[in-house]
Amino acid sequence: MKKGDSFSYTFSLTETIYNGFIAIFNDMNPLHTDCQFAQNHGFSDKVMHGNILNGFLSYFIGEKLPIKNVIIQTQEIKYYKPVYLHDSLQFRAVIEDVFESVKTIELKFVFENQNQVKVARGKVQIGIL
Amino acid sequence: MKKGDSFSYTFSLTETIYNGFIAIFNDMNPLHTDCQFAQNHGFSDKVMHGNILNGFLSYFIGEKLPIKNVIIQTQEIKYYKPVYLHDSLQFRAVIEDVFESVKTIELKFVFENQNQVKVARGKVQIGIL
Repeated sequence: MKKGDSFSYTFSLTETIYNGFIAIFNDMNPLHTDCQFAQNHGFSDKVMHGNILNGFLSYFIGEKLPIKNVIIQTQEIKYYKPVYLHDSLQFRAVIEDVFESVKTIELKFVFENQNQVKVARGKVQIGIL
Repeated sequence: MKKGDSFSYTFSLTETIYNGFIAIFNDMNPLHTDCQFAQNHGFSDKVMHGNILNGFLSYFIGEKLPIKNVIIQTQEIKYYKPVYLHDSLQFRAVIEDVFESVKTIELKFVFENQNQVKVARGKVQIGIL
């Protein structure tokens, strides 16, 4: 893996994922579960939990890189636009830097929805085990 | 909510949460699923997915703050030490800043395991809807 290498993957925000996330983590905040509450605050429907995107990031790092001996060291994400149920999110990542001496790799990533709207972007630093 | 307000909550990393996270997000990287692989890389057992902690953070923000009309805008986390199955994690958060004009609140947080080892820390910025 080297600077400039890029990756992409499409994630679908299905009912199974949404319901599963709530079943596991129990975050039933009305923004995520009450359509009327969300609409009263200017959203078109209930808003998906941002941390579902971090679950997708976990899958990408753990499963879609060319190597498996990796661990996430740090990560950050900024949410720009709401994600709704049934959205299809294109995830793109690019390697920003490779620090061989300390065996770390930095990637930038972005999530874009089916309307080509960037909904989130962030950075993740991984260590090579 | 005002600067200096602090919160704490204890999360248990149960089998249900671990298995559920894998069922939803499908991250079966050997570090998280293969005890021998993890031990070969210096860990004492398979390492839990860092983003399970972000799921706990989602619950805290969505359910344990004094107000419900909140949304996560940005978040970052640094993982310092491995988290293992059945760990009990004390989560502590403190309000760093309140920006009333733009309706945002910044919190710092830390996760500490049952041996008083800080396993992760980070920041989250929330918007008030």
